[in-house]
Amino acid sequence: MPEPKSRRIILVARPRGRPQFTDFRLEEGPLPRPGDGQLLLRIALLSLDPYMRGRMDDVRSYARPVGLGEVMVGGTVAVVEESRHAGFAVGDVVLSHSGWQTHALSSGEGLVKLDPAVAPPSTALGVLGMPGFTAYAGLLEVGRPRPGETVVVAAASGAVGSAVGQIARLLGARAVGIAGGPGKCAYVKDELGFDVALDHRVPGLNERLAAACPGGVDVYFENVGGPVWDAVFPLLNEHARVPVCGLIAQYSATAPFPGPDRLPVVMRQVLTRSLTIRGFIEREFAALRPAFQKDMAAWVAQGKVRYREDVVEGLERAPEAFIGLLEGKNFGKLLVRVSAL
Amino acid sequence: MPEPKSRRIILVARPRGRPQFTDFRLEEGPLPRPGDGQLLLRIALLSLDPYMRGRMDDVRSYARPVGLGEVMVGGTVAVVEESRHAGFAVGDVVLSHSGWQTHALSSGEGLVKLDPAVAPPSTALGVLGMPGFTAYAGLLEVGRPRPGETVVVAAASGAVGSAVGQIARLLGARAVGIAGGPGKCAYVKDELGFDVALDHRVPGLNERLAAACPGGVDVYFENVGGPVWDAVFPLLNEHARVPVCGLIAQYSATAPFPGPDRLPVVMRQVLTRSLTIRGFIEREFAALRPAFQKDMAAWVAQGKVRYREDVVEGLERAPEAFIGLLEGKNFGKLLVRVSAL
Repeated sequence: MPEPKSRRIILVARPRGRPQFTDFRLEEGPLPRPGDGQLLLRIALLSLDPYMRGRMDDVRSYARPVGLGEVMVGGTVAVVEESRHAGFAVGDVVLSHSGWQTHALSSGEGLVKLDPAVAPPSTALGVLGMPGFTAYAGLLEVGRPRPGETVVVAAASGAVGSAVGQIARLLGARAVGIAGGPGKCAYVKDELGFDVALDHRVPGLNERLAAACPGGVDVYFENVGGPVWDAVFPLLNEHARVPVCGLIAQYSATAPFPGPDRLPVVMRQVLTRSLTIRGFIEREFAALRPAFQKDMAAWVAQGKVRYREDVVEGLERAPEAFIGLLEGKNFGKLLVRVSAL
Repeated sequence: MPEPKSRRIILVARPRGRPQFTDFRLEEGPLPRPGDGQLLLRIALLSLDPYMRGRMDDVRSYARPVGLGEVMVGGTVAVVEESRHAGFAVGDVVLSHSGWQTHALSSGEGLVKLDPAVAPPSTALGVLGMPGFTAYAGLLEVGRPRPGETVVVAAASGAVGSAVGQIARLLGARAVGIAGGPGKCAYVKDELGFDVALDHRVPGLNERLAAACPGGVDVYFENVGGPVWDAVFPLLNEHARVPVCGLIAQYSATAPFPGPDRLPVVMRQVLTRSLTIRGFIEREFAALRPAFQKDMAAWVAQGKVRYREDVVEGLERAPEAFIGLLEGKNFGKLLVRVSAL
């Protein structure tokens, strides 16, 4: 009988623009063995998220880039396979940050035990995890929509956007979502209950967005950049807030960007309309986490916040799924099933 | 004996780019007579401020533009010449918003009586007025410097910039000022007590600013835009705050701006460094006004905040002085003496 193997996907080249399959490599090796105080984790689910594109570049950021030859980073749901740690037993299901691989050793630090009886473990990577908290914290701390105000969000069927619009409505605001294609738009409007869903693939987005926001836009939750920004920006009301949590449309652009230079126009409007543009990463709002866990778990349990998962089977398909994510091919929170839970 | 006349400067053309003398016209007319409940004000001092450039354009903003044929707007210190209003007596000195003219009628609404025994009335247009409050509110509400942090401000010898740096130091922060020419820089460093003053007319601003901010920049108080922005932006630390109260360097630009497009680069940094860019106008922080009046009056009385005035004689010189202001020719708060106090 052959030795059990572990597999992992490492970064082997920094992409110029759009990531390619050749930027990644699948490696196989022996199963690691836990030392004293360690655990062996078997990864069940890997979360794929747009921020990972940023980690592939060697640029200054809030997080250090993935090194060449290193395992791609990522949030995971894992099962304890072997434990030499008093705090964890074989079979425990945990949230970890083990990256794109089938197995990982852990000292237990940073692991969060998940109770499958309370919520499906996959939600710890989505609506009850980082993407959900990004939506919650960005909206409550930066966007601060008041009842009757209009909140616009793109990638509205995605993990963050879908939560943004639903929370906005729970706060009494109008939610206008932008998504790609009629299927996603129908889901955003009919299943998630946004007031309006607009398909950015249909021509005339600027005009249709203006018509959908007759009172202007008070909060633009920026997670894409690109043409959606250009459509939303002229509609921003005085004192509008723009939480910025992602710029998926420009992650793979190769600088310099052609003119005209939009910055002076944007700054002029920032000034004359007293706009706030605020980049953030959810972990800076850690103090809000307990409130999020309580609110969001209740909203999900009551059906007030709904979510959708797009599950790809097998670690080896992670690069393809990730490249598709950057092009909007997923429909809902993108997950890779690495092994059975 | 001829009838007493009043004079006023009206806007006759919207500037394309830099304002020209021909955009203004000096008009003369009979002295207006106050009706019941009205006052006749004789303007003593007119404040000239960069925001007036914005009012000359016919664009959406927080304030409506000056109409063609209308008197140019502006804050003024005035003396009550005639009163048919129970609340005001002849000889009262008031802060008003009478614009570029020698006389104005008023219903009394919005006037603030000034006591020359407490502070020179001119300070109501400068350090104790709108520019001083812009510095105070923008720094306390948006910039929020913590002790030891670095605050950068341009036009550092001007009405707003000089107050920004001095308040920053009173809050325990480092103040780095940028100004045009050795005289202004010596004043900013030696008289105002900034930690560093840099001359933007000397080549190599980017390198000199980087050397002056070895720990990066935590607050950039934006009042100019243009090349100073380009020098400061790469130095902004994670969680840096950028209160935007003016963009004097670009007010007279004629769109579109040539490429490359800097916006995607700026937005990427907003995201990865969790930056806050926040336009504001001081009046949105009206709740802070009493604290400002108390703090600033004390600081000025104690010599902790110093100020400088650049006084031009005669209403007819207002256009020339205003055009010079946009080019940085003034040295200190620019005022026009319209008549003796």
